[in-house]
Order: sequence, then C-alpha cells, then structure tokens
Amino acid sequence: MTILFLWFLKRFLFIIGLGIILFLFGSMFLHAEFISLTREPSHAVPIAQMLKLLPEERIKDLFTYDGIWLFPKNQCKCEATRQQESYNFQDAYGTNDLPAVKARRQAEYEHFQRREGLPRPPPLLAQPNLPFGYPVHGVEVMPLHTVPIPGLQFEGPDAHLYEVTLTASLGTLNTLADTPDSVVQGRGQKQLIISTSNRGLLNFILHHVTYTSTGYQHHRVDMVSLESESSVAKFPVTIRHPLIPKLHDPGPERKLRDLVTIATKTFLRPHKLKVLLHSIRKYYPDLTVIVADDSKQPLKINDIHVEYYTMPFGKGWFAGRNLAISQVTTKYVLWVDDDFFFVNKTKIEVLVDVLEKTELDVVGGSVLGNVFQFKLLLEQSKSGDCIHRRPGSFGPLDSFPNCVVTSGVVNFFLAHTERLQRVGFDPHLQRVAHSEFFIDGLGSLFVGSCPEVIISHQARSQAVDSELVALEKTYSIYRANTNAQVQFKLALHYFKNHLQCST
Amino acid sequence: MTILFLWFLKRFLFIIGLGIILFLFGSMFLHAEFISLTREPSHAVPIAQMLKLLPEERIKDLFTYDGIWLFPKNQCKCEATRQQESYNFQDAYGTNDLPAVKARRQAEYEHFQRREGLPRPPPLLAQPNLPFGYPVHGVEVMPLHTVPIPGLQFEGPDAHLYEVTLTASLGTLNTLADTPDSVVQGRGQKQLIISTSNRGLLNFILHHVTYTSTGYQHHRVDMVSLESESSVAKFPVTIRHPLIPKLHDPGPERKLRDLVTIATKTFLRPHKLKVLLHSIRKYYPDLTVIVADDSKQPLKINDIHVEYYTMPFGKGWFAGRNLAISQVTTKYVLWVDDDFFFVNKTKIEVLVDVLEKTELDVVGGSVLGNVFQFKLLLEQSKSGDCIHRRPGSFGPLDSFPNCVVTSGVVNFFLAHTERLQRVGFDPHLQRVAHSEFFIDGLGSLFVGSCPEVIISHQARSQAVDSELVALEKTYSIYRANTNAQVQFKLALHYFKNHLQCST
Repeated sequence: MTILFLWFLKRFLFIIGLGIILFLFGSMFLHAEFISLTREPSHAVPIAQMLKLLPEERIKDLFTYDGIWLFPKNQCKCEATRQQESYNFQDAYGTNDLPAVKARRQAEYEHFQRREGLPRPPPLLAQPNLPFGYPVHGVEVMPLHTVPIPGLQFEGPDAHLYEVTLTASLGTLNTLADTPDSVVQGRGQKQLIISTSNRGLLNFILHHVTYTSTGYQHHRVDMVSLESESSVAKFPVTIRHPLIPKLHDPGPERKLRDLVTIATKTFLRPHKLKVLLHSIRKYYPDLTVIVADDSKQPLKINDIHVEYYTMPFGKGWFAGRNLAISQVTTKYVLWVDDDFFFVNKTKIEVLVDVLEKTELDVVGGSVLGNVFQFKLLLEQSKSGDCIHRRPGSFGPLDSFPNCVVTSGVVNFFLAHTERLQRVGFDPHLQRVAHSEFFIDGLGSLFVGSCPEVIISHQARSQAVDSELVALEKTYSIYRANTNAQVQFKLALHYFKNHLQCST
Repeated sequence: MTILFLWFLKRFLFIIGLGIILFLFGSMFLHAEFISLTREPSHAVPIAQMLKLLPEERIKDLFTYDGIWLFPKNQCKCEATRQQESYNFQDAYGTNDLPAVKARRQAEYEHFQRREGLPRPPPLLAQPNLPFGYPVHGVEVMPLHTVPIPGLQFEGPDAHLYEVTLTASLGTLNTLADTPDSVVQGRGQKQLIISTSNRGLLNFILHHVTYTSTGYQHHRVDMVSLESESSVAKFPVTIRHPLIPKLHDPGPERKLRDLVTIATKTFLRPHKLKVLLHSIRKYYPDLTVIVADDSKQPLKINDIHVEYYTMPFGKGWFAGRNLAISQVTTKYVLWVDDDFFFVNKTKIEVLVDVLEKTELDVVGGSVLGNVFQFKLLLEQSKSGDCIHRRPGSFGPLDSFPNCVVTSGVVNFFLAHTERLQRVGFDPHLQRVAHSEFFIDGLGSLFVGSCPEVIISHQARSQAVDSELVALEKTYSIYRANTNAQVQFKLALHYFKNHLQCST
C-alpha cells in the first residue's frame, strides 16, 4: 500500500509543479496580451494626433463677455470701434516726461505690491496618491494665537516604525497628545517629528496637532509640510487678524434719523442748495444733512439738523464729497447733488430695505428717469491694466427683481457709510468727475441700482437776481471740463490706478 | 538516456512542487508571526492607556502670551488683577435697556457677518490616498473671468474605461483640449464629464481644464470636486476682484511736500495752534498743513500752505480728525496735536524712510520722550470679544532695530494716507478719546513706533490775556472726561466693536 501511495504522491506533486509553472507562464502571457489589447487604440492612432488644443479662434470665442476676452494674457489691448472710444492714458504725459513717470509709477507699484503680498506665489499642487489626510483649505489663525489643525492622518503602508515630520515656517507646532519625549520631538519648534511603531498612537498624535503663529504679522500664508518616507503633503495655514466690526445702533425705534444721514457738496449755488434743503424737509423733517461748501462766502443755514462745513475756496468737488462723508455717524449715507430736489417717489426707505437685505454696498436710484448704469471690466497686465466701460448691468439683484447689479450709478445713492469711507472720493479731482469714484471702488464696492426710487433735478433756469447771475457765471467757468482737466484726469488714471488704457 | 532524463525530470518537478507548497505555507506562517510580533507592543499596553491628552494646566501653560491664553475657547473672560483693571462694557447700559440693546447688537452683528461671509465654513479636508493631483491653494479668478486650473491629474489604477467628473457651483467648467463630444460632455456647464479609455488623453484633458466665474459677485470660494469611481477630491477656487491700486506720484524730485501732508485739529486754542504752525515753518517751510477747526470763531491764518476748514461748533475731536485726513492728497500724512511743537529732532524724513522700507501702515514717534506704546490682544467669543491691552511692543521692527512693532502709539505719527482713511476716526467720539482709533484699526493697521523721532509739547502755562483765559476755561470744560462720556465710550465699545470686556 505504501509504495502505491508514494507513487500517487509523486505523480500528484509532479502535476502540481507542472501546473504551477504552466499557470505562471500562461498568466504572464495573457496579461501581456490583455495590456496590448487595452492599449491598442493608442497604438492605432498616434498619441500626438489625439492630444491637441482647441484652435485659437475657438478659445477666443469661448471666454468672451461683452466682447472682451476675459482670459489670462500677457498684454491687454484697448481697441476703438464704432461704438467705443479708446483712451491711451500715457498720452496725457509729455513725451519728455513719460520715461521718468513710467519709472516712478513702477517704483510706487512695486511698493504697493510688496505691502499687499503680490504677486501671489503660484498655486500649491497636491501630488496624487499621498498617504495623508490633511486640511486643504480653511485653517486660519490670529497672529500669536494657536489653533488645532484638523484632519491630519496617516494611511500609508504598514511599517515596523512610523516616522512622520511636520514643518512650518511662520509658526511653531505642537500636539495636545500626551506622549513620551522619544515619541514626539520638537514640541514648540518649527519642526515636529513623530516616531512610533504604533499606528493608532501616530494618528492620535496627528489628530491633535496644533499650530502657533509666532511674530506679529498681518495677512500671511504659511505652507506647512507633512512628510513620511518620500511622500510630502503641503497645506496652507492663513495667519490673519479678523476685522473689528463697526456696527451702528439703529436705536429702539429704528427711526430713519438714526439710520440715514444725507450728504451733499455745494459751490456757488446757494439758491439751488436752499431748494434742495426745502424739498428734503417736506418729506424728512429730521434727517441730518451734512453740507460741505467751498464757496467764497459762508452761508447761514437755519436748520438745526443741517451740519455746515466750510473749505478753502474752490478746494474741489471730490474733496468736498470726501469731507461730507467723513462726518457721518449713521449706518447709511444718502448722497445727493446740490441741484437735485426730493419728490414723492424719493423713498429713502426703499433704498434702506435693499441694503439691509442684500450684500450691496451702494444702491443708486434714478435722477428723473436717468439711471446712468455702467459696467466696468478689468483686464490685468504688467504694463498697466485695461479697463472697459459698458452701459447697463450684470443682471438682476437677488430678491429685488426690479433692481440690478452694476459697477457705476448716478450721484443719487444710498451707501454703507463704512464701505463708502473705505473707498473715499479722491481730493485730487477738483472739477468735473464721476466715474473715477467707481473705478477707485472697483473690487471694493458691490454696486446696484433700483430705478423705482426717483429724485428730481433742478433745471437750469434764467436767474433774475444780478448777484445770482454773476455767481452762476463764475460757477460755469469752474464747471467747464477743460482740455487741461481732461488730460489731468487721464494722467491720474495712468499713475494712480496703474491703468494703461480704456474703452 | 531518455529514461534517465525522464526520471530526473520527474524528480525535479516533484521537488519544485513540494518546494512551492512548502514556501507558500511557510511564508504565510512567518508573515502571521511577523505581524503579531510588530503589533505586540499594542497588545502589551492597552490602547486606551496610550491615547491620552496633556492635562489641562499643561495646555493652559503652553499657548499663553502676556498672560492671556490665546487658544480657541467658548467663552473668553476679563479678570481684574493687581496690575490690570477690567471693564465689562454692558455695564454702561441701564439694566432695563440691556436686553433690547443686546438684541439690536445681535441683529447688526448678523448683518455684518452675512456681508463678510462669516462665519467661515469648517476647513475642507482631503482624504488620504486620493488618486488625483489637484491645486490645494492659490487658484484665483476675477468675477466673470476664466482661469486654467493647474495640476489636475489622474493616477489611479488602470481601467478599461476612465470616467472622471468635475463639478463646480459658482462657475462653469471647460477644457482647452480639442476632443470629440463623446469624450468630454458638459463643456461650459457646472459639471464636466470626461470618458475615455486613453489614460494619456484623460490627463491631457485634465491638464487643460478651465474655470469660468459666472455671475458678478465679490469674494466667494467655490469648492470644486473631482471624482472617479468612489474617490472624491475637493479644492477651492477663490472668486475675487483685485484691489485697484491708488498710487501717489512723488514727483521728479521727490520733494517732501509731494510726499507728506501735516494734519491737525484745533478747538479753542488758537494761540497754541499758532505756536505749532510757526514751529513747523522753521523746519518745513512748504509742507501743506490741514487744519480742522470746530471753535466758535473762525481763524485767519496767513500761510499759503495752510488749508483751513471750519466745522459746526464743538462737533468734536474725532470728527475733526476724520475731516482733516479726508483732505490729504499725498501718499503720507503726519498727524500732530495742536499743542505740539516741532524741534530739531522732529525729522519727518526718518518716519518716511520707515514707511517706505517696511510694511507698516503707521509709525509713531515720541512726544518729549513719551512713546505710549501699547499692545492689543483679542480673544473672540460668541457673546462679544475680550480685548486685552498691555504696555510695550511685540518686538523689534525688521530692518530698523531702534523701532518696534506694536498696536497703539502717541498722537504723533506718520501714516499711509489710504490705510488711515480706510480705518478713519469715528465722529461719535467728540471729546476725550485715543485708543478707540487703534481698536478700530485692529487687524487693518500694522503699527510701529520709532522713539528717536521726537516732537515737543507746549506746556500748560498761565495765560495772561483775559480773552485767552476765558477761552482756556471753556476748553477745559469740554476737555473733561466726565462720567457720562466714559459710559458713552464703554457703550460704544459694546455695540460698535462687539466687545464684551477689556483688561
């Protein structure tokens, strides 16, 4: 029996061995065949032929808004068309002055960029198949404060010993886990090294890692790295101080007087100012009105709710606007020109409702049906940006279907005082100016327009009083948009706003 | 020979077969042994015993700065000690008024939060071992613009067919890769679906994906997801409009007059103002000086470089400060009080140098040796923040070892006009106020102090002129920090700044 058994065993093991060898070779062969079958399409069509980009005209079509191609480019352009004029701002400078102006502008621009942390570093890319969990976005810490870092974990292959290193540069690291010094080194340093053979302990330590911002600095981003063996993950920790709120108390009765201040500037038009004030009082007897006046003679205004300020003679339009808004103590400020007048449809409450319920900073109304809405589109470029102005709006405003979102409106608007003050009116602009304010506000002010709130405009009428006639004549001289002033404003756009041209 | 060969072959295959079987069993056994050996420490000590946190007192010690624990907490506290007083701001309100005030403050705070996009959503966490490459941080797009998304790649297991989906919510997706419609679906939509069996083509398409921001909105973050099978990666795309620069031209000769404007406010102290102006002219004959005056009678100032503004009588200290700075047209503004006077060491050029070369927004000097530096530390909390004021500085200023970084300084400082205007002086503060400005500036203004630049202070002297005596008496009445005013300022901190208490 034993001999028979041994004989069967030998045959059996022979067959097993043969079978295994055959299997190994066979599967390798089949696998290769399979791979080549799967990859066959790529062999069928050459790769180079498949990997092509859309033609340039197609790409130009794709990302166009209002006829402007809003895609990254080296150089932007301002092309004049039948509908659009185009201005090249550097033309406002004499050819002799221009090189020196360019150099000064570049120096000032670089100072601005340094202070703003620009240009931003290129995006941080994560490699595929990193064995780590980590926070991609949203970890923020106040200067000198500490925060726990959420989401850190290691899910790599098993190992006899795990060694994981965390490295920061603008702060120090620690962990709330209680461990022996041999397991965690570098507590309170820029580099934290975790060494343990216990995977559960490793992840517990990682789960409780903290980041402490050291050194008092404003807005910075620290790229923290997490590594083990040859795998490195990096994630951002934003060091930022929150903005202190500046809230206004509307008072127990939410009186309009405690919510809104009216602001205006006047110059050599006391008669028009009086008409305006009279019309305000017809509908709003106790709203505070702030008047900035750079006329020759100060006015006497008998109204306990009017605050009157005098300025150096002819100091200017935007200087006066900036002065007026600097004195407001309510949450909202309503801007009106001194030659407007209030009518039944001048409902400030409607504008307040819009600002209370949306994220707008400014909402304009209509001046006798004229809304003067315009959009501003910016293309950035190293040698100065290109700004494009188009009439109309970006679309309707959420929750207020009769209102729209835009970039610029008329000089009849309600604004969040704080947001308006943050942009301000540039005192350089002494005479005719309007859109410059909205350009300065680009990126800061979220602007809308509600045409149903209407204010009226005092028509130019023939003055009878001789003194008034003289005054109006002087006013017209100051009000004329002379060529010198136009050149001044173009030069201001060139230098101040780092613009190249506009359409 | 053949029989011998066959015999050897049989034996050979027998040995191979046996060997393979032995090897397979053996390695399984060894592996199991190995695993149990590696895991042995965790079996030796119970896991629960190893995973413990540091004791609370230790954690409290770890993250303390100037005696304040700067770590996230539910409720902050202001504890009075021998060195520090503590103020509870709600005590400034009558007990009957307080519930209504609290409710109004909460409503205003919620409006503020809505507009600022607060509170921020919890951090976005990346899972381990995602088979994707993607951009973790730094992808930004202007509203309505398009950007390429860098770093997208798929490195998962081989498959017969690859299907990868990208999903956005505040914008649309596309790719610059030219492909048939069967391969890429959803071009220009919120969801882009890529189906291909060619891995190279898949990664080429991903490499050229673009994101287009749709809808005009200000600062938002879109979480874009990238998925395949059961793996999902998410990454942030920030929609933000860049700030328009507001640069100042220093002119071809960089004259100090084109760089710096001096600003001051005066009230019932014309004699002191004149001493100040006279001292300025001794060292700086042509710098523009802006004077805001809320006295009863306007002054006549014979100086072509002084700009003089009048205000409603007693309108107030901070209203006047805000007015004065609203009129500045130079890059920098130097604030001085009307009872200072310039001496040899009052070197404006030194302060200009500091602001030109560092990231400070404000740099203070010394008033007759008094630098009045103080730090402000904030602890955030749902029912109002706790603010802690400590004398001194955070440390030296980079590149200027004699200067320091701090939160507040004296009323003799040079500031970036634009940054100063963005914070502003709150016109609610009519009488005595100082630190309120720096509290309003917390998080916005980066403040430093350079004690070597010194201005002098006009001592209180016995006035001889009877008119002046009367004036000074009136001034003292307005200047007294009455209890009512103190309560008013505490109430303002409670509501406006959403503060709970201070130490």
